[in-house]
Amino acid sequence: MARLVMKFGGTSVADIDRIRNVARHVKREVDAGHQVAVVVSAMAGETNKLVALAREASPLHDAREYDAVVASGEQVSSGLLALVLQAMGVDARSWQGWQIPIRTDEAHSVARIVDIDGARLIERLEQNQVAVVAGFQGISPDNRIATLGRGGSDTSAVAIAAAIDADRCDIYTDVDGVYTTDPRIVARARRLEKVSFEEMLEMASLGAKVLQVRSVELAMVKGVRVMVRSSFEDPASVRDGANGLPHGTLICDEDEIVEQQVVTGIAYSKEEAQISIRGVADKPGVAADVFVRLADAHINVDMIVQNVSPDGSTTDITFTVPDASYDQAKQVIESARNTLTYTEIEGVRDVVKVSVVGVGMRSHAGVAARAFQALADRNINILAISTSEIKISVLIDQAYTELAVRTLHSVYGLDKQ
Amino acid sequence: MARLVMKFGGTSVADIDRIRNVARHVKREVDAGHQVAVVVSAMAGETNKLVALAREASPLHDAREYDAVVASGEQVSSGLLALVLQAMGVDARSWQGWQIPIRTDEAHSVARIVDIDGARLIERLEQNQVAVVAGFQGISPDNRIATLGRGGSDTSAVAIAAAIDADRCDIYTDVDGVYTTDPRIVARARRLEKVSFEEMLEMASLGAKVLQVRSVELAMVKGVRVMVRSSFEDPASVRDGANGLPHGTLICDEDEIVEQQVVTGIAYSKEEAQISIRGVADKPGVAADVFVRLADAHINVDMIVQNVSPDGSTTDITFTVPDASYDQAKQVIESARNTLTYTEIEGVRDVVKVSVVGVGMRSHAGVAARAFQALADRNINILAISTSEIKISVLIDQAYTELAVRTLHSVYGLDKQ
Repeated sequence: MARLVMKFGGTSVADIDRIRNVARHVKREVDAGHQVAVVVSAMAGETNKLVALAREASPLHDAREYDAVVASGEQVSSGLLALVLQAMGVDARSWQGWQIPIRTDEAHSVARIVDIDGARLIERLEQNQVAVVAGFQGISPDNRIATLGRGGSDTSAVAIAAAIDADRCDIYTDVDGVYTTDPRIVARARRLEKVSFEEMLEMASLGAKVLQVRSVELAMVKGVRVMVRSSFEDPASVRDGANGLPHGTLICDEDEIVEQQVVTGIAYSKEEAQISIRGVADKPGVAADVFVRLADAHINVDMIVQNVSPDGSTTDITFTVPDASYDQAKQVIESARNTLTYTEIEGVRDVVKVSVVGVGMRSHAGVAARAFQALADRNINILAISTSEIKISVLIDQAYTELAVRTLHSVYGLDKQ
Repeated sequence: MARLVMKFGGTSVADIDRIRNVARHVKREVDAGHQVAVVVSAMAGETNKLVALAREASPLHDAREYDAVVASGEQVSSGLLALVLQAMGVDARSWQGWQIPIRTDEAHSVARIVDIDGARLIERLEQNQVAVVAGFQGISPDNRIATLGRGGSDTSAVAIAAAIDADRCDIYTDVDGVYTTDPRIVARARRLEKVSFEEMLEMASLGAKVLQVRSVELAMVKGVRVMVRSSFEDPASVRDGANGLPHGTLICDEDEIVEQQVVTGIAYSKEEAQISIRGVADKPGVAADVFVRLADAHINVDMIVQNVSPDGSTTDITFTVPDASYDQAKQVIESARNTLTYTEIEGVRDVVKVSVVGVGMRSHAGVAARAFQALADRNINILAISTSEIKISVLIDQAYTELAVRTLHSVYGLDKQ
């Protein structure tokens, strides 16, 4: 007997037929003797419809009213799944965020979960009643519905799993797991059986959009084992594999991963833009001045490169920002021209960040050097480099994306045999 | 300064443009210095859509889950109206049933309101914040959403009005008031400026479908003055009339109606069917036996006529039931043939009940005789008669509906001059 959380997104509950398919997945786990809490998103398209209505009502909307409107989608899907489960003979009830309660902070529409009281859920689970929890929402300190922001149902699922001390949190998606890289680019990409929280964080934030980043952070902090698996599998034919896990990818503590690879995956992100400030005075405080201004404008700066100045008087500062912030970032720098002396600003938008990720890097030297050599062999010019303990990122011309990803995927031995 | 409840149905909030029109009505009252609570239904069509989803999910649905699904419609419309009001510069917030709270009994999907704590609403109203309340719902003793059944938003509005001690509860509808009879039948029907609770109850339950019957009962018990008025009026040109009231019909205590007519209106209902049991043994307990069986089958019996038997041994029992229960009622009687001796059952479905209503009847003799004479003059045969203190109902052949209603409307001097 295990205690499981199962999370299904909007596509999986888009109509009653699909909700029946979800219910068959749930019934399978119940029949296997497990205690089950299910977290659901709104029916596909509903949240967008509700967001559009709220925007039409008031472009500058009160986030508390926006939340009351938008959260109704999960109220509907949770009630419908409970009804379908009951019709299949499975004892079930729906739980809204305010009924559990799932307490959030006051940041309506982008709220964070502060605390979940799991006691009532556990009591019902122990009576073998399935808990169907409305995802994406909780209740704020002023007793009003608060939503967690788009994709928040993943976070709801992980938080519920932590609150009820679940053995595993299964996230059912339209893919069957996390891959070594994007299979659309590299046909020989392999599904990972297990990946560590840290690696998944780097993969998720770098563009492998399987799971919301916040949900992975929360899973890491709370030690919740998360399984990415496919909702398209036939519920009747699901069997655990030789490793004791169903087909998918387990995101877990690195201690649970026995055969650790040096490199786990290659991620990439095209939503980057590069800005260079030329001829900046090379004296203390200048770099700080630039980045404080960008931070004040809520612009997220990622890679930063400052060259050592050849003449000792001026230098060049290069950094990347999300492509969506490119124009604003240039404006911020230009408007500071009076206090910040420089000769010119240059920008490039058609760049891509390619990242090599793996916790094994911590104990292996030379990982970065192999990447640089492999790219050089293909005549790919590196515009900027940044590294962390478990990641090496390079910024290159976007035209070389596929070539770079395939090259690195092969170099680190990730290709499927 | 007055404290007002304003209630708008689904057609009035069907899209954002119509919600803006509702908001203009609300703003007019706020600008006039009034404290305002608004009660809204779901956007037109939404409740039907949600009911269809719940039925598709499970034909024999758990009423608690059905309620969670169906109540989401009012959550959306209340949030949207709050947003539109804010965009117009009117301070407003939405209130769900569980936030106020509106406490109901356990009869999910047909719940009754048990208690409303008006304290929080009053606190906000006194700060000149408009309260936008989701109609049709409350919270049951087990902390779950409970709906009041179709049309329950009228009842929500009256209950909120009682809880906050409102001066008036304005029900905005697609008609501009309550008429002496159906204007589609009698062109000279007049709008009533005022009508008593008791009269309105007889009118509403007899087919003048302006207000839900339960809301009128509640208004009478709680002494809430209810105004039926049109949502199609231009919000900018609304003015109070010579009687100090806006255009519409005030439903109030009869003490507030100075110039009381003997007869207030003529109502009719075609959803009736007549059943006669011939040759029943004329001894004590037989009638009880018949009607206990019908009550056990939840069939609502209305008019009952038992003739004095000419020979002292057998009699005929005639009664009416809702036309929808006609077949079931005949089955109940037929299945009791073994214990209930009778010669035959007869039924007529194309009948109509026409009622003359007026609190003035209490102190005026001869009202019924005038009706019977007028119908006889037109050669209209009366199949059954029932009377109450303030009502005379006759059952006639449905073909004579218009003639009977017009005749009685004239006889009692109700025609517009």
